[in-house]
Amino acid sequence: MTSRLPDTAITPRDGDLLAAVDLGSNSFHIVVAQCVLGQLRVVDRLRETVRMAEGLNALGGLAPAVRERALASLSRFGQRIANIPPRHVRVVATNTVRQLRSPDSFLVPAEAALGHTIDVISGREEARLVYLGVAHEQPPQEGQKRLVIDIGGGSTECIIGRGFEPLERESLQVGCIASTRRFFDGGKLSRKRWNSALTEISAQMQQFAATYRQLGWDEAIGTSGTHKAIGNICVAMKLTKGSITAEAIAQIRDRLLQAESIGSIDLPSLSDDRRPIIAGGVLVLEALFATLGIDRLQVSKAALREGVLYDLLGRGGADDPRDVSVSALMHRYGVDPAQAQRVSHTALLLFDQVASAWQLTSDDRAMLSRAACVHEIGLAIAHSGYHTHGAYVLANSDIVGFSQQGQRFLAALVRTHRRSIPKSAFEAIPDRLLANARRSAALLRLAVLLHRARGDELPPMLQLKAKDDLLTLRIDKRWLQGHPLLRADLESEPDDMLGLGIQLRISTG
Amino acid sequence: MTSRLPDTAITPRDGDLLAAVDLGSNSFHIVVAQCVLGQLRVVDRLRETVRMAEGLNALGGLAPAVRERALASLSRFGQRIANIPPRHVRVVATNTVRQLRSPDSFLVPAEAALGHTIDVISGREEARLVYLGVAHEQPPQEGQKRLVIDIGGGSTECIIGRGFEPLERESLQVGCIASTRRFFDGGKLSRKRWNSALTEISAQMQQFAATYRQLGWDEAIGTSGTHKAIGNICVAMKLTKGSITAEAIAQIRDRLLQAESIGSIDLPSLSDDRRPIIAGGVLVLEALFATLGIDRLQVSKAALREGVLYDLLGRGGADDPRDVSVSALMHRYGVDPAQAQRVSHTALLLFDQVASAWQLTSDDRAMLSRAACVHEIGLAIAHSGYHTHGAYVLANSDIVGFSQQGQRFLAALVRTHRRSIPKSAFEAIPDRLLANARRSAALLRLAVLLHRARGDELPPMLQLKAKDDLLTLRIDKRWLQGHPLLRADLESEPDDMLGLGIQLRISTG
Repeated sequence: MTSRLPDTAITPRDGDLLAAVDLGSNSFHIVVAQCVLGQLRVVDRLRETVRMAEGLNALGGLAPAVRERALASLSRFGQRIANIPPRHVRVVATNTVRQLRSPDSFLVPAEAALGHTIDVISGREEARLVYLGVAHEQPPQEGQKRLVIDIGGGSTECIIGRGFEPLERESLQVGCIASTRRFFDGGKLSRKRWNSALTEISAQMQQFAATYRQLGWDEAIGTSGTHKAIGNICVAMKLTKGSITAEAIAQIRDRLLQAESIGSIDLPSLSDDRRPIIAGGVLVLEALFATLGIDRLQVSKAALREGVLYDLLGRGGADDPRDVSVSALMHRYGVDPAQAQRVSHTALLLFDQVASAWQLTSDDRAMLSRAACVHEIGLAIAHSGYHTHGAYVLANSDIVGFSQQGQRFLAALVRTHRRSIPKSAFEAIPDRLLANARRSAALLRLAVLLHRARGDELPPMLQLKAKDDLLTLRIDKRWLQGHPLLRADLESEPDDMLGLGIQLRISTG
Repeated sequence: MTSRLPDTAITPRDGDLLAAVDLGSNSFHIVVAQCVLGQLRVVDRLRETVRMAEGLNALGGLAPAVRERALASLSRFGQRIANIPPRHVRVVATNTVRQLRSPDSFLVPAEAALGHTIDVISGREEARLVYLGVAHEQPPQEGQKRLVIDIGGGSTECIIGRGFEPLERESLQVGCIASTRRFFDGGKLSRKRWNSALTEISAQMQQFAATYRQLGWDEAIGTSGTHKAIGNICVAMKLTKGSITAEAIAQIRDRLLQAESIGSIDLPSLSDDRRPIIAGGVLVLEALFATLGIDRLQVSKAALREGVLYDLLGRGGADDPRDVSVSALMHRYGVDPAQAQRVSHTALLLFDQVASAWQLTSDDRAMLSRAACVHEIGLAIAHSGYHTHGAYVLANSDIVGFSQQGQRFLAALVRTHRRSIPKSAFEAIPDRLLANARRSAALLRLAVLLHRARGDELPPMLQLKAKDDLLTLRIDKRWLQGHPLLRADLESEPDDMLGLGIQLRISTG
């Protein structure tokens, strides 16, 4: 791996605390994590809306009121990290502090209030850390390229990378606060202002757009509060299931312009805190979509501060973190490994018989195996409804390495691996993945059912054929007669499987 | 402990499976458990409604159709236990098999179908095992006496015990199926029939009622499907929050009689499976309430089969199983023990200052300490909303030693230990425990807030006074000025605590 290890890279022991502090242009953040079984577990977060960028004047001075706000916030943060060894803490400051004419006049009292040194990082270093945070949260697929965009209060970082390695890094001097202040002075929103702002920002982007377009990417991911807020608005307006599309941006922009002023903006799910700066964020994002030719962007929950945490650990990224996470989940919830192994083995055996007829991918195969490994985690909570408990855990956990979409896929398979299938089980799955999710769920159900007695024994003949939504299981008749519980379970299975939209036929031949 | 250990008592190792099979007069049950970290974890349950009691004729013969139904069910059960070492399985049969004139003509083919020997147990042994199951699920309080009632299809067991030891055991020849068949022949329900049945059953109960009333009890608990069904109806009709009272029984009985026939019974939450036999169950319960003078009965989820499992393990009951369970939860979810210890210590320190003013009990003190120990378990799922995740786990887990009520109490404290307090948080808490739950929650919040930085340090002066719903925290002013995060957290705390109905005043003196 080529990612630079910072001089401070540490090897924490179980129970040790680590903290990353991110002094951004819009808000200050702390994330505190504890090492548990070799993984990082977030134990506390703090966020304060300081709006540093609002206090920055054209000469690089900082308004006294904003300076006071920042120092008061840092003194609270200081108490939070006072008990953590300084080597386990890294504090980074970004664009607004970069822009200060005499940064020390802020940094000296700031470090005193915080009780820790502050690293003012460059835009390109910020880009590297953002990319690292996203890569750990949501591991890149082998060989694929990824575009990551982070819209901050004062600057916007754009990175294209492959694996854990950034290939191109750009930091643009446009951010949601800076752009709102500059283009919508006095809080007035109009189509004319919007279009001229778009022209100006797009011009600034032209310098790197060609290189990026030429390099290309397989998926685009947005991080930061701006993306989260826009993603939530997309869901609330029923435009998408959480991702951001060019069409959705256009609709949100039109509603912004209808408001005519920032104070009157009325977008579903938008917080009061975000309202004053959303216009600039949508503007920057529209410009990026147009200039780079993005059609869809996923929203990641990782951000700069997660990158700082992983960088502190000096992690490059070795094993697929998804498999590391699945093992950690199995261990955490005391899953019976023999049963997980059996069900996984049989599920893949069935998968390989129908993969081509059902057009299932190697990704689906890996997800099916992972679902088999974790399908019993809910037993740690209770046997009654354990499939529901397992799905709850999978849907709500911070599982390193999985995208939100990946977690939902896993949760849906676990939710539906036994008993009847509620209509809501696949609600959170994007339409394009729906058919494969349902088909994978059917395979997991059969594997679980065949191993209900927790033994290795399988029927001497076990043939599965698929054609569209018809699934035929051929099983030895005499053998089945000797296994009356399995026979009874198989008799009721076709009814349940209709809930997956699949017609199961059992043929005893 | 005086409870008899069966000859088959075993010492299973981690990963071993155990099974208890209960061939009851209404339904057959299997529960399969696995040893995980020295505790039993239920991994599978099977229930089949066989209605053996329906096939029993006056001469002790068994109707051929019912016999077939039972044997078919046993062959399915047999497949389920085939992989478990026979020493780890115990199969018990109860009243209907006890009543057979020539039991072997059923038992020989039954054991062949099941592949395991079947112990036909006496009514008194059944009573002992039921009591044991309930005692493990819901540990008795030191020195208190408990009445346990199990209404089966063919017989009803009544036990009074103290700790893990039954003092009086009775098995009555009345059950929900037998009584429905006998008193409501042809499915007709009328007040006249009901009253004469009540008279007859009550007469039968008189023989032991005097002894029981004289011995007395501190709490009454009902197990079995009949109690669960009646408890659920009480909730659905908004008569109680899950327990069963004399008044609630009277209202349910009146609705039964309005139906005029069993086929027309329309009670909320009642399953189709239970409808044909609910009248007999309500009848037996009404007679017991009247004869023994019960005013309120809690419903337990434990039953005969759990008693069989624990008996198989040869467990008497040493430590308070609630503390064992809390330790197991902390271990399972990787709770930071130092933080749990700190918060627990400070919570109790605060508790002791206000316990008398707030009339909190030693039970409340123990529960507060337990809540402090587990308040962070949700972090294993995710930091975001971890109080909600923790409460989900506590409310949904099979936690040995806690009553459902105890689990809900714990869950409510964990749910409300940080952030704002939703109206729904205490919904499941019975009215009589509500004030103490809210007050305990306030103490936990303060302890958590004081230790947010995960250090041992406490303010040099920390005085808490309570008067009705006014809580005054006195804290050293100078010290607080040196701890700006705590100061900020304390500033917003009074607003949140209003959600508990408590007015918090911070006094810096």
